[in-house]
Amino acid sequence: MPNDQREPHRWGFTDSGFVLNEDNSVTLTGNRYSICGYPMPYFIPFVESMLNVSLSTMQPRAERQPGRLPEPNRNEAFCAALAQKFPVEQVSFDDADRLRHSHGQTTVDEVYQVLYGELPKLADAVFYCGGTEQAQALVQLAAEHDVCLLPYGGGTSVSNALRIPADERRMVLAVDTGRMNRIIRLERDNMRVTVQSGISGADLERQLRAQGFTLGHEPDSSEFSTVGGWIATNASGMKKNRYGNIEDLVESMTVVSPLGTLQESVGAPRVSSGSRLHHLLFGSEGNFGLITEAVLKLRPAPEVTRYQSLLFRDFATGIAFLQELSKGSVWPASIRLVDNPQFRFAQSLKPAQKGWTACKHSLQKWLLTMLKGFDPEKLAAATIVLEGSAHEVTVQHRALDRLIRRYGAIYGGAENGRRGYQLTYAIAYIRDFLMRYDLIGETYETSAPWDCIRTICDEVKRAAELEHARYGFPGKPYISARITQIYPTGACIYFTHGASIHGVDNADQKFHAVEQAMRAVILANGGSISHHHGIGKLRAAFIPQLYSDATRKVLLAMKRELDPGNVFGAGNNLFDRGQ
Amino acid sequence: MPNDQREPHRWGFTDSGFVLNEDNSVTLTGNRYSICGYPMPYFIPFVESMLNVSLSTMQPRAERQPGRLPEPNRNEAFCAALAQKFPVEQVSFDDADRLRHSHGQTTVDEVYQVLYGELPKLADAVFYCGGTEQAQALVQLAAEHDVCLLPYGGGTSVSNALRIPADERRMVLAVDTGRMNRIIRLERDNMRVTVQSGISGADLERQLRAQGFTLGHEPDSSEFSTVGGWIATNASGMKKNRYGNIEDLVESMTVVSPLGTLQESVGAPRVSSGSRLHHLLFGSEGNFGLITEAVLKLRPAPEVTRYQSLLFRDFATGIAFLQELSKGSVWPASIRLVDNPQFRFAQSLKPAQKGWTACKHSLQKWLLTMLKGFDPEKLAAATIVLEGSAHEVTVQHRALDRLIRRYGAIYGGAENGRRGYQLTYAIAYIRDFLMRYDLIGETYETSAPWDCIRTICDEVKRAAELEHARYGFPGKPYISARITQIYPTGACIYFTHGASIHGVDNADQKFHAVEQAMRAVILANGGSISHHHGIGKLRAAFIPQLYSDATRKVLLAMKRELDPGNVFGAGNNLFDRGQ
Repeated sequence: MPNDQREPHRWGFTDSGFVLNEDNSVTLTGNRYSICGYPMPYFIPFVESMLNVSLSTMQPRAERQPGRLPEPNRNEAFCAALAQKFPVEQVSFDDADRLRHSHGQTTVDEVYQVLYGELPKLADAVFYCGGTEQAQALVQLAAEHDVCLLPYGGGTSVSNALRIPADERRMVLAVDTGRMNRIIRLERDNMRVTVQSGISGADLERQLRAQGFTLGHEPDSSEFSTVGGWIATNASGMKKNRYGNIEDLVESMTVVSPLGTLQESVGAPRVSSGSRLHHLLFGSEGNFGLITEAVLKLRPAPEVTRYQSLLFRDFATGIAFLQELSKGSVWPASIRLVDNPQFRFAQSLKPAQKGWTACKHSLQKWLLTMLKGFDPEKLAAATIVLEGSAHEVTVQHRALDRLIRRYGAIYGGAENGRRGYQLTYAIAYIRDFLMRYDLIGETYETSAPWDCIRTICDEVKRAAELEHARYGFPGKPYISARITQIYPTGACIYFTHGASIHGVDNADQKFHAVEQAMRAVILANGGSISHHHGIGKLRAAFIPQLYSDATRKVLLAMKRELDPGNVFGAGNNLFDRGQ
Repeated sequence: MPNDQREPHRWGFTDSGFVLNEDNSVTLTGNRYSICGYPMPYFIPFVESMLNVSLSTMQPRAERQPGRLPEPNRNEAFCAALAQKFPVEQVSFDDADRLRHSHGQTTVDEVYQVLYGELPKLADAVFYCGGTEQAQALVQLAAEHDVCLLPYGGGTSVSNALRIPADERRMVLAVDTGRMNRIIRLERDNMRVTVQSGISGADLERQLRAQGFTLGHEPDSSEFSTVGGWIATNASGMKKNRYGNIEDLVESMTVVSPLGTLQESVGAPRVSSGSRLHHLLFGSEGNFGLITEAVLKLRPAPEVTRYQSLLFRDFATGIAFLQELSKGSVWPASIRLVDNPQFRFAQSLKPAQKGWTACKHSLQKWLLTMLKGFDPEKLAAATIVLEGSAHEVTVQHRALDRLIRRYGAIYGGAENGRRGYQLTYAIAYIRDFLMRYDLIGETYETSAPWDCIRTICDEVKRAAELEHARYGFPGKPYISARITQIYPTGACIYFTHGASIHGVDNADQKFHAVEQAMRAVILANGGSISHHHGIGKLRAAFIPQLYSDATRKVLLAMKRELDPGNVFGAGNNLFDRGQ
């Protein structure tokens, strides 16, 4: 997509964003999302009440206007070789380009810095790569001239993986894959497609749908994130129940490393051909090379997509429901359970309720509370997407029907389901809106066995309050949990954490420390380091807890062989300074 | 299981085997299998007709009685250290033990050699390992004393992976994992089980069923093959549609290598924690270390297991049916399509048909041929296993119902389905019976995209005839194909190849050459090197066609780091002589 539709640093599209209206309501501008274009009167009061802060007395913080950036570190011999090899428009030293390619979307460490503070280190230039052969030439030049290459896809990383290593002394070239956005070959019979790695999820899905197919990989970032980024991050989508995680969707890939091009002539759905290096590229976070192409497995475009929602007495009942559902084999394409704070958060984004709507709402509320005995301060909700042939959707619906009575759940309607599902795409706009009021919002996620889920949720909430008090943040923290992916053996928990940092010194560093503390709590209670965001630089400190010594040594040996000069010097995961 | 129930070199149990009766019928002895205990009058005539040979004039070949084996190559310092560290009964220099641990189940290269020829190289001793800690001590001693360790699980490899490298000069110790057969921990809520790697599929499944669970991994070898062997081979089971392949079933594992113990503290259903070395152990074929433990993902034991079968006008129609089925999401736990020769092979194992049975059979045949117009020389059949809750099985059945009319298929009944499914377990006994008559049978398998399946089947059949003629084997070859696993993007084809080598010089080498030629044909027509048997030593010559140079270099670098002294000197895949 053309860059001018994208915000350079904040999340999303330039035509979309939350604005504060005079009556203290907010509106999401534009018309891209189902919640665009109407005033939301309940949002600010909700935020104020949950965080125990007052926004009305505050002036929104103005974004820092970046002055002239420091001069780039130009490796002149490399620049000359680059100019000789590639058209001039493929290399940019432009300040705006450099700044845009020097961060991802981690809240305090990246977006907050670029908007209101200063990024500690910047890319020196940006290379817009055109394909595998160009990548091969580029990597060779970079190795010859000792230049550092950092792959850049959709820029949506939330693990500081795109942060430029502060101590890098070589010239740093961000390698933008945005031009590598073509479908190379679609094989109808074989249900697979070969694509360039820089194609975004939205573009790819649009083109596939036009041909009667779907990839079905729909991470929250799919409007912007790319195939290469998904592989490098080991991504998971909202509809993974039906379509699988990224590792289930990639048949093979092409990766250009300093040692050469990693490629297999696999061409088959599943193989037993010895240890497949392929698997180690998932989660490689830019450390090994540039992913340039991938062969992806397709499914027929769904005949039917039906939304649904469920209400549960409380979060624990919803978790038990999901656990039971996971034991069967017929799952909705997506089922996500939100806890009570997040349910109320979603309610706060509804339009003003008047007349019949208000009446209907009251009636519903009465039914819920009086008839079912649900406590509005405790109930939890699930948003559901059923997808497939008409028959498959019926079958998926029946699997739900069979369980809801046992768990005392009730259907909340298709519209609430659709709304809840699509709300996902608006969350980051809300984050950026609130940041102006010194309200920091971050998400973190983990996967855990079923018997750890409730404890992790409870302990994270408790720890959020303790940490909030420890650092003296004003008001109280907002912390909500949702279960976004399920497996027979466990689930992914996705936390949203908000807090005011107003008037706090070094608040960004403190919030970063809180994130680390929360991660430690998650690990201590049986959760994993990450279900799908990855390690990046944000969680690298936890590596010694994750792997045995031998495991780390082998991965380092692999890096040394692939990239002895640390050309791919992103320094993510355990590859800090390449070793 | 006690070793005395197992054949030392041939396949299977000592109480089970095909015997020739005086009336030229055959019987499978014992009562382990559904086809045990009755005379099969049609089998010998079928074999004679398909291969165009006469068995009645032949004397069965007598198995070679192994004399005293060559003295083992004893590394005395190592033996002394071993004796000091471990109880005496854990180390065996016994000839029978050595011979048993010096081969797998590849037909001409292994079983034929040990029964009728001579194995070129033998293990010097066998170590019966007791667990992870013992493995750690053993590996350390082996590294100190420059001894070669070869992991040995169920002994069912069909890729020459268990063959002792002929040029190995160090003492070779086979490490038998049979004592490591315990369930360490069953987590009911988390649907997972931690096991020692030497537990066999049958033992594990029996214990899990008693607790209400199933792993659902059912390779043809599951009576004998082990969890460690499945991982090392990258195995696939007959019910993978429901339960997944081995890589889908293993959450984490413990592997003891000379560098140290590879272990992750993952404990979660799915993670994004950087490149997971874990993945490289699938298909590692004994080259990296000894797999000692694994955490496996479970499912509830199925409420219902229902068999079914289908008849198709021809194999091509059956393939089209499977391809269509693979586009949906509701699949039977297992569906396997056999071509006409294999269908008739299965028929030849039925009991004599007399009285009402014969009449019923004639009627069925009449219905098939006259009413449906099926040609008995062309029709193909599928055996089906539906598994899950009663509701899930109904849903799976309906998915079939919806397709059969479109493809003009007809149900062949539950009994034929059950029989066909279980016949799998008898195939290797038939192989060993026929080998006495100089009839060599081998299976090989591949996976391929849907649009290559028919061509591969046709070309392999054509090549089998050409190769048969080239080497001057008597009669004609038997070659049949079945589709054993399906994916939306393609399928696994499993070939059975039989030929008489009677009176041919160096027949074993020639049959080996035929296997290589067939593999080349498969690769040339878009098939993969293997879907689930692996590379071992049998297919190592094809490695340069499979991987790019860079890929191979990285795998070799990892081996050097893990095992600089090539202690795990199995020499499989690309690790011939450790490099």
